[in-house]
This record gives sequence, C-alpha cells and structure tokens, in this order.
Amino acid sequence: MRSLARPRVVIIGAGFGGRSAARALRTVPVDVTIIDRTNHHLFQPLLYQVATATLAPSDITAPIRWLLRRQRNASVLLADATHIDVERRVVRVDREPYELPYDYLVLAAGSRHAYFGHEDWEPFAPGLKSLADAVEIRRRFLLAFERAEWARDPIERDAWQTIVIIGGGPTGVELAGMIPDITRRALRPDFRAIDSARTRVLLLEGGPRLLPNFPEQLSARTRADLADLGVEVRTGAVVTNVTADSVHIGAEIIRTHTVIWAAGNAASPLTRSLATPLDDVGRVPVQPDLSVAAHPEIFAIGDLAAVIQDGKPVPGVAQGGIQMGTSAAKNIARDLAGKPRVAFHYFDKGNLATIGRNRAVADFGSITFAGFPAWILWVFLHILYLAGFRNRASVLIEWAYAYFTYQRGARLLTEAEPHARGARPSTAPGG
Amino acid sequence: MRSLARPRVVIIGAGFGGRSAARALRTVPVDVTIIDRTNHHLFQPLLYQVATATLAPSDITAPIRWLLRRQRNASVLLADATHIDVERRVVRVDREPYELPYDYLVLAAGSRHAYFGHEDWEPFAPGLKSLADAVEIRRRFLLAFERAEWARDPIERDAWQTIVIIGGGPTGVELAGMIPDITRRALRPDFRAIDSARTRVLLLEGGPRLLPNFPEQLSARTRADLADLGVEVRTGAVVTNVTADSVHIGAEIIRTHTVIWAAGNAASPLTRSLATPLDDVGRVPVQPDLSVAAHPEIFAIGDLAAVIQDGKPVPGVAQGGIQMGTSAAKNIARDLAGKPRVAFHYFDKGNLATIGRNRAVADFGSITFAGFPAWILWVFLHILYLAGFRNRASVLIEWAYAYFTYQRGARLLTEAEPHARGARPSTAPGG
Repeated sequence: MRSLARPRVVIIGAGFGGRSAARALRTVPVDVTIIDRTNHHLFQPLLYQVATATLAPSDITAPIRWLLRRQRNASVLLADATHIDVERRVVRVDREPYELPYDYLVLAAGSRHAYFGHEDWEPFAPGLKSLADAVEIRRRFLLAFERAEWARDPIERDAWQTIVIIGGGPTGVELAGMIPDITRRALRPDFRAIDSARTRVLLLEGGPRLLPNFPEQLSARTRADLADLGVEVRTGAVVTNVTADSVHIGAEIIRTHTVIWAAGNAASPLTRSLATPLDDVGRVPVQPDLSVAAHPEIFAIGDLAAVIQDGKPVPGVAQGGIQMGTSAAKNIARDLAGKPRVAFHYFDKGNLATIGRNRAVADFGSITFAGFPAWILWVFLHILYLAGFRNRASVLIEWAYAYFTYQRGARLLTEAEPHARGARPSTAPGG
Repeated sequence: MRSLARPRVVIIGAGFGGRSAARALRTVPVDVTIIDRTNHHLFQPLLYQVATATLAPSDITAPIRWLLRRQRNASVLLADATHIDVERRVVRVDREPYELPYDYLVLAAGSRHAYFGHEDWEPFAPGLKSLADAVEIRRRFLLAFERAEWARDPIERDAWQTIVIIGGGPTGVELAGMIPDITRRALRPDFRAIDSARTRVLLLEGGPRLLPNFPEQLSARTRADLADLGVEVRTGAVVTNVTADSVHIGAEIIRTHTVIWAAGNAASPLTRSLATPLDDVGRVPVQPDLSVAAHPEIFAIGDLAAVIQDGKPVPGVAQGGIQMGTSAAKNIARDLAGKPRVAFHYFDKGNLATIGRNRAVADFGSITFAGFPAWILWVFLHILYLAGFRNRASVLIEWAYAYFTYQRGARLLTEAEPHARGARPSTAPGG
C-alpha cells in the first residue's frame, strides 16, 4: 500500500469527523488533502441559532485553511467530491485536479436531511444541515412576520403567524424552544398590525416522545418546559402531507407558510460508490476499526458510518465524529508503523439539549438533570468547544446581548423573495 | 392636500436619506410608511469591508423595524416599489397591499452601479451597492485563491491571482487599499502551492487622477500610498472590454478572473415614473425645497436627486442623504403648520477615504491632511456613526482583531460555485 513517496490520505468532508482525522494526522508522515464543498468548518450544534437570527453565520464557522494553517502536511481543496473509484483508488471531484489518488481514504461527508419518499415536501419544509439551510430558514422565519403584518385576510395572517416544526429530536426541540423568546420579546415592538407574541408554534413528533435518545423523565421534562413556553407539542403526530400553505396530520389540516423539517437524515450519496451494502438510511456498516469491508484503506466515520456498540448504534453527534476521526487517524499511523490496528470504542460524554433561555436537559448516563444548571453547563460547554478563539468571544457577546436585552442581532434579509427581485442581478448565497 | 385623517407620507428606500426623513417625521402628525426591498438599513460606507471579508454582513446592518420600533407613527413594508402613479398619488408595490396611497412621497430609492452601454460586462465585473453585491464580491475574492492553489497551468494561476478594480473613486481606492493587507498577511499561511502575497492588484481609473472629488494633493498622496502597498495604479486607463478571463485597455489585455466595478452609478429606475426630465444618469432635478417640478407633494432625496449648490452638484454621499431627508421632513411639517417651505442647504462636513491600515486622506475644505491622523479620525467617525450600539461594539472588536492579528474574521464561502452545487436544494441569498 505504501508508495515511495509519502502515503496520500484523502479526507472527504471537513465536519467534526474530517477535521479531527486531519488534526490527528498532524505528526504522521503522510500527505493529507481535505475536500469540502464549502471553505469552512461548521459548528453544527449551534446552527439552529443562525436559523433563528441569534448568531451570525460567521460566528459558528472557521475557514478550514485557517484551522489547518500550521499543519504543513495538510492541504485543502474546495470542491464537490462526485465519485469514489475504489478499484483505482481515486476520488473524482468536479474541478481541477478532477481526480485525487489516495492510499488511504477517510469518508466523512456526513448526511443531509431526508424525506423518505416525500421529497416533494422539501420546497415547503426545508431542513437544517448546512449554513445555507440555516440562512434560508432564517429568511422564511423573518419573512413570515413581514407578510403577516400586511395580510388583509385574517386567515392568511394567522397562517403566516403559525410555525410548524416537524421532528422532536434535539434540533426540533432547540428550534421550538428558541422561537417563543423571539416572538414575545425581540420582535414585538417592531410590528404595528400584528402581535408577534400571538405566534403559534407547533412541534410535531411521530413517535411517542420527544428526544427519544434521552431518558424518559427528561423527555417528559422537555415537553413540560416547552408547553410552559407556549409551544404546542404533539407526539404520535404523523405528518401525511406538506404543501405551500398547510401541514396535514391525517384529516387535520394546519394552515401555515413556515415549516421546518427536523425529522430525518440520510447519509451522503457518496456512500453508494463504495459498492458495499448500506443500511436503510444509506450509512456504511463498518468493521471494528471503522474500515469498510474488503477495503482496509477506506474508513467511514461520523454520521455516515453505521457503528454498533453494546448492541446500540453510536449516535450521529459531534463527539462521535470527533472520536471516530481520531481513531481512523490512529489506525493509519499504526499501519505505517507496522503495528496492528485497534478497534474503535465510543465514549459517551453525555448529551445536552437547550429549551429556550435558562432551561436545558442534561443526560450523563448515571446522572441526569434539567433546568437552569443544565442550561449554564450547556452555555459553558458550547463556548468551550467553539472552534477558534475569536468566534468564542463574538458568540459570548451575542449571547450576552440577546440574554440581557431580549434582542436578536442577526435579523437579516438581504433581498426580497427571489421571485420579486426584479431588476437585481443574480447573486449567490452568502453568509 | 390634507384629508380628514392624518396625512400619509410614503418613503421609498430605507438608506441614509429615507431613514433620516422617517426619523425627522417622528413628532409630526402624519402616518409614515417606509418601503424597502430588504429588511435592513445598510451602513454603506463600510460595505467594502464586507466585500473583503473583514466585517460580517450583520455588523453593518440594523433591521429597519428595529430602528423605528419606538416611532409609533411609522410602519415598514418589505416590498419592491415598482411604479409611482403621480396622478392618482399611489405607489405600486409587488405584493400586499399592492397600492399605497400617499399625500406626500419621499423618493429615496438610491442608485445602482451602471455600465453605461456595457451591461454585458456586469456578470464579469460586479458592482458594490447592496449587501448581496458585497457577499458576491467576497465569494469571488476568496474563491480566486482557492482556484489559484489548484491551477496546474501557471498562466491560469496568475490570472486567478490578479484582481482588477475599475474606478478610482472612494470605493475603488478603499477596496484596493484593503486587499494587500489581506493577501500579504491574513491569507498567506493558508496556502501551500501559491504565495498569496504575490497577488497582483490593479486599480484602473479612466480620468486623470484618483478621488476626483478630493483636492489634487490628496489624490497624489493616495496614489503614492497605494503604490507603497504594491497596488498598480493606472490613471487615464479607459477599459474597452471585460470578459470572463480578461480586462482590455485598448490593445492591452490583462488576464484576470476577478474584476470589481466601482466606475459608475445610475439612479433607481423608479425616477422614470415621475414623468419629469432626468439628467444623464437618471437623477431627478429638484426645486430648492427638494420637491419635483409641478409636484410639491413629491420630494426626491439622496443620490437619486440632482441638487446643484454654488454651481456644484451635491455629492451622493451619506451626509447628503441624511441632510436632504431632514430637510424634506421639515418642509412637510411646515406645510402642515401653514408655514412657507425653506430651501435645502448642504453643509459639507468634510470627506475621508482610508487606504489600507493606518492611512487615510481627509478633506475639510480649508484643512486637508493624510496618513495616520486621518486614519484614526476615520475609525473614530465610523464607529460613532454606525447605526445602533450593538453593531458598534461588534465592529470595534472585529477591527481590533483584524488590526492586531492581521486576520480576517468573515472569510466565508457558504457553497461551492453555483454551477457546481449539484444535489443541493436551491437557496436564497443570505447574510
């Protein structure tokens, strides 16, 4: 496997998994190339705060090149990886150099939200995975109040003042918990014809409880906390249709123009080029060392890898990606040093989810707690883990501002709706 | 002109002019509606800092509603004004309520960059007027280095490392002065195959000198300062063609993929619906009280108004817009109080332009100065005038960070190039 030159490691994706793999290869005698379709590492756990206009896009991102600026064995390629040729050991990308040969491949391309046979809902119920998604949701969220303010028909006005979030996992819960604070305080003085505090927020979950990965008593607490904030939580609510102006739950029709999809993910379609059987959401089943069957030179990590430990799947969260990236890098180093590979072991550091201001739920296995202490812990940990000192300072200021003034700093609509842009030149999505 | 209800004042545009008119009508017994196609007031003098990835879009914007939240006689409409029916006294907009009747109209819709018969250059040489423009220029600027890094052909690589700015007014000078600092310091550790410090920056001006509105000795100083930073300044350089990979100056062809247009503006096309003769760039000649001939109920202000004072045109800058907005509002109040109108008088507070870090030129009529003192004054005044305390604090931090670390905080590319987005859902421009 080793050529005369240093082995080439190609990493697809600069999320938590890819970034941690690249970093862990810092001192290993390999040449690393990390491919991403954006130029930044995204701190995804705070993406919902961009979607709700609390943080600005640049607060939760750091340029990948900047993060790797001192790692001389790493280079960065801004491109779309379109195919993996496992026979020739080459990754195809959509621009120069078109093909990148590898000795080792770390596939960390992540997942996208998925509609599982209802792809026609996507235009009406966007999901929240990338920064562009968050900016689009922010646009719809802010625009809804602008439309409500000028709607003459009261039924239309109510539809603009109804926000439906589909999916009761952490993303759905965190989004739903954030909105009442904004509609009741930040936006209220801004409008003349409507009372933004009267906005109806619905959180729909198909299963029996919110946060299914948390212990049951925390699900119950989360539900109570959300209800306290005025969010209508519905469990066992299976969505049967989504249109431009409604969400259907069986025979019940909820009129709304603002729907957010937080109900499901599917692995990057790149997994299909591995010619290995995938699970039902497109994830790659991996060996104990995270490599792909019959391809010890390919590692699949992060939320596109299906890793089972103690009979349970390892969740697709940041800490899973980070640990898998380090593990894959370590096994590459061990290969080169002639040592046997070691199996990956996931260490669950615990789970946290916030519910608006001052409230959160925390699950550390044997210890669970909720309320203000959990929220303080959440704030502390997120500031600690934010990539790069500068973002950290900036986020602290934004949060302090939002906390003490109830205002939101990033309430930005750059253009009117696309169809209304008239004479404007076409523009690319921004940040 | 007065109905039984309170007179309705419609203001088109929430820039410096529109915002100042709305504010000055605070205590006047009228109902004010301000129409804008975005939801924010933009601090345009710092737009070039967004284009060069120094400031984030939300640093230089404040929601219009938020700025007017305590002004109970003002409401805001996010829409595109498409036509003014001067006979029926109605503004048509592209959505509900479709028509807005007015008793007074303040037209403050500003201008767009213009190519004067060369509109086909626009896709290759975007201008810098709106936030969406700035984000697009930032995208091209950052992308150029990504492409240079992976270009195999040295001629192509050089083309990606050549940036041409067309137009030697304040925007062109400020953009050109900012770039060397970024290419020599902030970006340099990020690249492996290229040396970002070797980037060629050209500033092309068709006339005989830079900053034609400033005294001649400051133009000379500006040119010397830019040359000192490594910018190639060419005066008398009339651009004859712009293509996807070149700029032509007569027979000379400069190979480049990154061109910024800072060479000319034309007033909003809305001025055409006034049925009054316009000047050669579409501006409205106004009466001494800023009203439009034969329409005392319509005021034209800001850079779409052609105002001559002491034989010289009043420049289309922020202070002009602000003063005109106040003056128009004052004359509306005087009408309602049965007093005669007063003529507008422009008070020139002076002009400043920065040239990179630590340098600027300042023109206060009898006093002119340059260098570090002018730069400090520039920083102080811009922080002072920035709309809203929060932005001010945030900008101060970004500037301090950029100044002391030579880094740039907002180096954000949200997506790969539009044509390469593949499976991504369509997204609207963001902030």
